[in-house]
Amino acid sequence: MILQLSKTITGQEKAQAINTIESIGYQVNEVRTQFGHYLIAVGKKEFDIRKIGHLKGVHDLHRVTDPFKLVSKKWRVHDTDINLGDGVHINRQSFSIIAGPCSIESEAQTAVTIEHLKTNNIRMMRGGVFKPRTSPYAFRGVGLEGLKQFSAQCREAGIKVVTEVMQVSQVAEMHDYVDIFQVGTRNAQNFNLLDELGKTDKAVMLKRGFSGTIEELLQAAEYVFSAGNEKIILCERGIRTFETAYRNTLDLNAVPILKEKSHLPVIVDPSHGVGLRNYIEPMALAATMAGADGIIVEVHNCPEKALSDGQQTLNYSEAQQLYHRLRQTFSLRRSFSIHH
Amino acid sequence: MILQLSKTITGQEKAQAINTIESIGYQVNEVRTQFGHYLIAVGKKEFDIRKIGHLKGVHDLHRVTDPFKLVSKKWRVHDTDINLGDGVHINRQSFSIIAGPCSIESEAQTAVTIEHLKTNNIRMMRGGVFKPRTSPYAFRGVGLEGLKQFSAQCREAGIKVVTEVMQVSQVAEMHDYVDIFQVGTRNAQNFNLLDELGKTDKAVMLKRGFSGTIEELLQAAEYVFSAGNEKIILCERGIRTFETAYRNTLDLNAVPILKEKSHLPVIVDPSHGVGLRNYIEPMALAATMAGADGIIVEVHNCPEKALSDGQQTLNYSEAQQLYHRLRQTFSLRRSFSIHH
Amino acid sequence: MILQLSKTITGQEKAQAINTIESIGYQVNEVRTQFGHYLIAVGKKEFDIRKIGHLKGVHDLHRVTDPFKLVSKKWRVHDTDINLGDGVHINRQSFSIIAGPCSIESEAQTAVTIEHLKTNNIRMMRGGVFKPRTSPYAFRGVGLEGLKQFSAQCREAGIKVVTEVMQVSQVAEMHDYVDIFQVGTRNAQNFNLLDELGKTDKAVMLKRGFSGTIEELLQAAEYVFSAGNEKIILCERGIRTFETAYRNTLDLNAVPILKEKSHLPVIVDPSHGVGLRNYIEPMALAATMAGADGIIVEVHNCPEKALSDGQQTLNYSEAQQLYHRLRQTFSLRRSFSIHH
Amino acid sequence: MILQLSKTITGQEKAQAINTIESIGYQVNEVRTQFGHYLIAVGKKEFDIRKIGHLKGVHDLHRVTDPFKLVSKKWRVHDTDINLGDGVHINRQSFSIIAGPCSIESEAQTAVTIEHLKTNNIRMMRGGVFKPRTSPYAFRGVGLEGLKQFSAQCREAGIKVVTEVMQVSQVAEMHDYVDIFQVGTRNAQNFNLLDELGKTDKAVMLKRGFSGTIEELLQAAEYVFSAGNEKIILCERGIRTFETAYRNTLDLNAVPILKEKSHLPVIVDPSHGVGLRNYIEPMALAATMAGADGIIVEVHNCPEKALSDGQQTLNYSEAQQLYHRLRQTFSLRRSFSIHH
Repeated sequence: MILQLSKTITGQEKAQAINTIESIGYQVNEVRTQFGHYLIAVGKKEFDIRKIGHLKGVHDLHRVTDPFKLVSKKWRVHDTDINLGDGVHINRQSFSIIAGPCSIESEAQTAVTIEHLKTNNIRMMRGGVFKPRTSPYAFRGVGLEGLKQFSAQCREAGIKVVTEVMQVSQVAEMHDYVDIFQVGTRNAQNFNLLDELGKTDKAVMLKRGFSGTIEELLQAAEYVFSAGNEKIILCERGIRTFETAYRNTLDLNAVPILKEKSHLPVIVDPSHGVGLRNYIEPMALAATMAGADGIIVEVHNCPEKALSDGQQTLNYSEAQQLYHRLRQTFSLRRSFSIHH
Repeated sequence: MILQLSKTITGQEKAQAINTIESIGYQVNEVRTQFGHYLIAVGKKEFDIRKIGHLKGVHDLHRVTDPFKLVSKKWRVHDTDINLGDGVHINRQSFSIIAGPCSIESEAQTAVTIEHLKTNNIRMMRGGVFKPRTSPYAFRGVGLEGLKQFSAQCREAGIKVVTEVMQVSQVAEMHDYVDIFQVGTRNAQNFNLLDELGKTDKAVMLKRGFSGTIEELLQAAEYVFSAGNEKIILCERGIRTFETAYRNTLDLNAVPILKEKSHLPVIVDPSHGVGLRNYIEPMALAATMAGADGIIVEVHNCPEKALSDGQQTLNYSEAQQLYHRLRQTFSLRRSFSIHH
Repeated sequence: MILQLSKTITGQEKAQAINTIESIGYQVNEVRTQFGHYLIAVGKKEFDIRKIGHLKGVHDLHRVTDPFKLVSKKWRVHDTDINLGDGVHINRQSFSIIAGPCSIESEAQTAVTIEHLKTNNIRMMRGGVFKPRTSPYAFRGVGLEGLKQFSAQCREAGIKVVTEVMQVSQVAEMHDYVDIFQVGTRNAQNFNLLDELGKTDKAVMLKRGFSGTIEELLQAAEYVFSAGNEKIILCERGIRTFETAYRNTLDLNAVPILKEKSHLPVIVDPSHGVGLRNYIEPMALAATMAGADGIIVEVHNCPEKALSDGQQTLNYSEAQQLYHRLRQTFSLRRSFSIHH
Repeated sequence: MILQLSKTITGQEKAQAINTIESIGYQVNEVRTQFGHYLIAVGKKEFDIRKIGHLKGVHDLHRVTDPFKLVSKKWRVHDTDINLGDGVHINRQSFSIIAGPCSIESEAQTAVTIEHLKTNNIRMMRGGVFKPRTSPYAFRGVGLEGLKQFSAQCREAGIKVVTEVMQVSQVAEMHDYVDIFQVGTRNAQNFNLLDELGKTDKAVMLKRGFSGTIEELLQAAEYVFSAGNEKIILCERGIRTFETAYRNTLDLNAVPILKEKSHLPVIVDPSHGVGLRNYIEPMALAATMAGADGIIVEVHNCPEKALSDGQQTLNYSEAQQLYHRLRQTFSLRRSFSIHH
């Protein structure tokens, strides 16, 4: 159960509300975000909702039977709009494209990427500076100094920065240089990191764990929201199955389900999903038709020379064709007036 | 290695060809289909292809390194067209829709389905008469007599019959009443059944095993082809994974991969795939954008009363909207001139 | 619900019983096996059991809430004993070892295997004569004639024959030469084959589908039992997962669960399970400790030259050590008086 | 390739060694642990090993073709012994039992657990103080203050403390109160945490990710080792598959494989593995026979009242029987002189 508190609620009124809920055997969690103030009541007993219907200072009250609460569509009728500033939004009315290399490599490479993005009217650049690598001996990214350079170039060009954060202490260090903190698939249940990201005012993109269920992804989002941050983007990026013909099983089934269960925007990563260059375009177009609100895709001026993930990275000409087709596909989907 | 034999090859020339191939340590399998006559040579040794380049009666010769041979795109440049007669085809130039109830129930219900199909310009009806059921105590279908009735009604209406065959002895019994034999996911590696279907002249639709790899699906097709039948349709219908939010993980990644690896048409079954009515449309549209050559979908005039699979079955008005959108989506995809 | 009918039930009494059950909204299936006569009532309504408690000709009545009925331990308190004759049994009081090559190859090879078995006091030999192969071009076994030779040699030596049946028509052909019909993992849901095996008087060993659930294995057993054959052995042989370090994930968790849910004996196949020679022994011993009633294992006088599955086959000296250790391990387990 | 450096190597000799290796196109990582000093050379080129055979200050040199290096058995012939002090070891010569509640609850409950352990001659207690929970609203453990109390009680009783660490900053905070840092399945690829644990002198128990491969577990161990800590214990705790009859698929196949590939001790967690109280004993005994060097198991004086995981927790009388049988089983296995 979610109680939306009024902005003018007094301490006494809040204490009264908490008391009342606890008296029916429910546990109460107070949540204060950028946009709202809530009490989350968790419990199993049946009770007469009229008992708590007339609490002072309580703006509205919603029963949510899902295991996740604040990220559920059951209480919030309008979909979440993530406003990144300068006219850049991620939401269900538009189609967002985030593109860039797997790893940030150099100032020159960032420059050429930015040019490619601007040519194609793309406002968000991805690029890893801290890279989670299976082997401790592999390249782990250019680090914080690299991020500062990457960020400066993007700011100059009016491009938003999307990059992965791997641990709690990096959140503060990276904060000023990032527009969307990306949480990778291996940290999908790193609950301390999720808590910490809940305390920031920057947007957070949560990748589904490669063996995480749809419900676990929504619970991860609940961590961030309940710690104070409503700016959350969900990202399907492929799950681990028995099939070995491709890198991961991009699970497009998750897209309409996430959109029905949650009010958060849903984007898809076909690069890590199917993971093979030839299949990125069909899977990205399919994702769009399945209802994705955007795509995050790996592009590089010379995929063969990329420091990581070259086999799943598009070159600029392939990418350009993809952007064009994505927009046409989204346009057709929108004409169906389907919000799936 | 595939040797396409000329129509006029003599017994002596064939013996000579077999001898030559065996002499380089390869095992030879002779295949005779509706449309061709082949020798399939299987082995691992490296050899000088010029040794066998000038065999008499050999029209053409192709190295195929895939584990599957005749169904591989490596030797056949043109895609397979399945001609069902009366102007009904399944191929990569058109978009095929197969619709109908999970189970055939009654003459009346078939009649109303046929009317629905005709209204929507659909030429192929699905409907099970032999139903594989997990429990021996569940409804197992109306059987052969039901098929005869179903088939008579379809023939009358110019509709092609698509229905599941479960065992070898049914192939002959069902032959005259069927246009496409469907092999279900549980029989995906029933090799005797595949062999038997290789001897028929009717088209065969192979569903991927719910835990079958893409390569195993292609090997199943190789069974049918090598036993004499080139009329094969591949069908992705969802795989079994850890996710429980839906029925099966419809694996759209398989679509572009199957189309790249094989010359056979590829259709998708979103009804068994995601398995929940609300998500059939987005997944069907996504499949189309991923490159599917068609869709097989469960529809019923009253899904709530269907004898099986009601929760994944569309009603006629939902279905009508879907057909319309599928055709628009295919049209957009075709405008991309992509053959993925 | 299971109604055990008395041997002297009259036609009228049976009709009366069926009527009564149907009148409470349950569907009735009559089952007649080698050992019993049952009515299986399937339905969902709650009802007063006293209503049907005093039916004439009904020996006993058991509520079974499992989806499978006759194979459930909920109604049969004593565990099933499979009597193969000549003092050979498979049951929970003893530990059964079945050994032999993957494929029957020749009279000489069968002879040497039999000698190995006799030396080690083993009474059951496995060996495939019909081999399910992923590729249609691979060796498919020595066939029926090979089976006759194999069987003759075993009969001569007092050894029971365990071999795979792949299709309905083979059941009659193979009947006289087989002691245990083995149903392979790819036919785990070949319901027609299961039905046909229900009509035979020979024992049936059901391998779990490589992506079959424990419940599906029990439902497959229910098919055989409800078609008339109570002589069923369950076999865990590994499932398909994301792990590629071995052939299949031998799922020993299934062993104690199957033993708790069903009264049927449970054996384990470590050869197909882990699928790598070095790990056969530890997994076989582990299976024994997990509660397995026996092991089916691939052995060959020269695994390197076996026609199939050499990499997972033990040589005679490895096998001999294994048998010895299996028996010691079973002896320790028995001392725990645990029937898991 | 691993170069073991001599204790007396000079700076100049090391620089010379690094130069030589880099000159053949290999990348060099220097590793300094509690027990050794190594250079790890990673590369793909073939080269003449004699070129680097006579480097001064290099004690020994090992080619390791595995993707993991320092944890591989290919270079270290003797198995690792984890010495926890006071005569408590984890290694392959003995069988270790770690027992305790899922969560530390209170001083009284710790006291009763310690008494249970002492009665049964168990020297290591498990108990979570920081609990990773899927929902942000669930109980997250008694925290650092709880750990201090728990640790003080254990120290008093001569019992070693095994508890989960969830993030980098906790490593220092928890250090003085912990004997074995446990890394949970959700942090199996939290590379920053692994790095940090590499800098501590305490033992680290790595749980396999619930969808982690065996190789990924070994790579996680490589992170810890290469960051400076050789005291690593591997733990199999079940993987996520399609089966829903139990909590996780405890993958005992991993046990003999890990023992063959690595020199580190391997323990098994049947509580999280199969996850159902009735099956803990058979799976624990099976793990022992598969070659496990120990077991970590959840016990509670009153499982029904445990704050978490009650359904998979043994009571003291069940546990006592288990310990006894584990020791008998290990004793039998040791009599086989098998080191699997």
